[in-house]
Amino acid sequence: MRAPAGLVLAVLAAAGLAGAATGAERSARMSAPVEPVIAIHGGAGVIARESMTPEREARYRAGLQAALDAGHAILARGGSSLDAVEAAVRVLEDDPSFNAGRGAVFTWDGRNELDASIMDGATRRAGAVAGVQHVRNPITLARAVMERSPHVMLTGAGAEDFALERGVELVPRSWFHTEHRWQQLERARRGEKAAVAEHASIYFGTVGAVALDREGRLAAATSTGGMTGKRWGRVGDAPLIGAGTWADAQVAVSATGDGEYFIRAGVAKDVAARVEYARQPLAEAARATIGTVGELGGSGGVIALDARGTVVFEFNSPGMFRGVKTATRQDVAIWR
Amino acid sequence: MRAPAGLVLAVLAAAGLAGAATGAERSARMSAPVEPVIAIHGGAGVIARESMTPEREARYRAGLQAALDAGHAILARGGSSLDAVEAAVRVLEDDPSFNAGRGAVFTWDGRNELDASIMDGATRRAGAVAGVQHVRNPITLARAVMERSPHVMLTGAGAEDFALERGVELVPRSWFHTEHRWQQLERARRGEKAAVAEHASIYFGTVGAVALDREGRLAAATSTGGMTGKRWGRVGDAPLIGAGTWADAQVAVSATGDGEYFIRAGVAKDVAARVEYARQPLAEAARATIGTVGELGGSGGVIALDARGTVVFEFNSPGMFRGVKTATRQDVAIWR
Repeated sequence: MRAPAGLVLAVLAAAGLAGAATGAERSARMSAPVEPVIAIHGGAGVIARESMTPEREARYRAGLQAALDAGHAILARGGSSLDAVEAAVRVLEDDPSFNAGRGAVFTWDGRNELDASIMDGATRRAGAVAGVQHVRNPITLARAVMERSPHVMLTGAGAEDFALERGVELVPRSWFHTEHRWQQLERARRGEKAAVAEHASIYFGTVGAVALDREGRLAAATSTGGMTGKRWGRVGDAPLIGAGTWADAQVAVSATGDGEYFIRAGVAKDVAARVEYARQPLAEAARATIGTVGELGGSGGVIALDARGTVVFEFNSPGMFRGVKTATRQDVAIWR
Repeated sequence: MRAPAGLVLAVLAAAGLAGAATGAERSARMSAPVEPVIAIHGGAGVIARESMTPEREARYRAGLQAALDAGHAILARGGSSLDAVEAAVRVLEDDPSFNAGRGAVFTWDGRNELDASIMDGATRRAGAVAGVQHVRNPITLARAVMERSPHVMLTGAGAEDFALERGVELVPRSWFHTEHRWQQLERARRGEKAAVAEHASIYFGTVGAVALDREGRLAAATSTGGMTGKRWGRVGDAPLIGAGTWADAQVAVSATGDGEYFIRAGVAKDVAARVEYARQPLAEAARATIGTVGELGGSGGVIALDARGTVVFEFNSPGMFRGVKTATRQDVAIWR
């Protein structure tokens, strides 16, 4: 059921960016505007290429493109990386093709319990929510926690009280219901072999974004419905700062995969720590971190971005829904 | 209201331990038994020395000693570091003097919402619970999550369903009620100046343990009631793997302090990453990490232990309830 452990590294060296900042000190970047970049993922729970219909593939690609466009439009007009990652993730949350917001997977009890987190690299402020059931855009609630509460992480009904107090949009549970996710739950409940074979697409999936703005500020955001059939208020890595999401002055990371292994490897912070403390290049850091996840027995991937605009997509699963956009290039991909 | 930012480093170099493992390779340690060590904390929410009565100080010291004794007895008879940290934390959870289990602080709504996490360094398995209200020993539930579920983190009522399924002891809410914590909530609700002045002792407090067993295996555990007057299902660093708790083959860490800042600094994992990736000595790593917490505006501390038996207590608060025990030395301390 595990994806092959072999690693694939896909560095989409953002063409045209290198000139703006390569070799420049941070202080120089602060004065000379940086070429903005946004990268996103729609989860590593990729369907086998042979069972993907052209229509379905087109829907995924259109969803990824729309998220890239929403995030990049903000960056292009001088907006913040924080605004960009929130905007991109909101698009993916509203898109029923992805496991976040509308289209989230169902819990064992037939509900949708949503988790999200966001982090601002320049200030290291962070916000997160876990187990919310009526919040249309959990990433926006996570940002409200960061900016409009003294806390970093709120959970369950309490987080929804906070949403009501701050005017963050709530929706009835039916908003999140999609028939294909319900069918996945039914199959998982029956323990069907097909469900097991579909492990990756059924059991996990996450959306996320990392961005670098003109001021050289990084941000990261991640949102998910978790795993189909999850029980007991299970929380994965997505809402955990340091596991699913991390941003500091040098590196921004959003992860997707078997959440339990990603927590145990401290994935997002581990990538940043390798860059900061071991001076590893970003691609090497991401490869090593996902290597650790693989050693523990997990599969999935990360998107990572540094303050020079280097974008890395690293995963040990058969694929990862992903994309990148700058002023001069854009790319959307699913498989290796 | 913040504690002085100056850092104090108290390395209690566990005498008699150095000979057993200094300079030895891990493989050598695996064959030659290691001298076991346990270190604990009872929170950095220390009361000013001048307002501490002798009776109260004696209660704190007796509680810390009992926890050290419980943990060390397991190590001395060849038990695992995992058993030792769980046992030590259970003693502190049952002791009404400390903010974990019985004696936990109250939420704004007058309830006790408990968080805990545990991690096994040798395997990097981990377990955590957040927002449980009826679990006598949240650390034992966290361990059950680690060992008897496919998950790492369970929250709220779902976590209590899991406790019932696994036979982990539940108690009525009244078990956790202590009059002094209720009075602290009342004062916090009234916004009294005295409550504000007592910031450290009222608003946070945590218990935790790190241990090294004869096999050279490290473990870490942390448990808390969170902050007095917390709302909206707030979760701090204590139940977050990588923030409040971390253990790997080299380093085990348990943290206590302003949880929000500890999450943003990714404290427990940061100490371990500095040791692993920057090759910093443990004391230097802990000092640097708490330095980051201080720069962000937070106060508190960590206990850290490495596979050679080096114990570090590092905090930027006026004190930290703490202790260490080996076959040849023991020490309990409160202030610097």
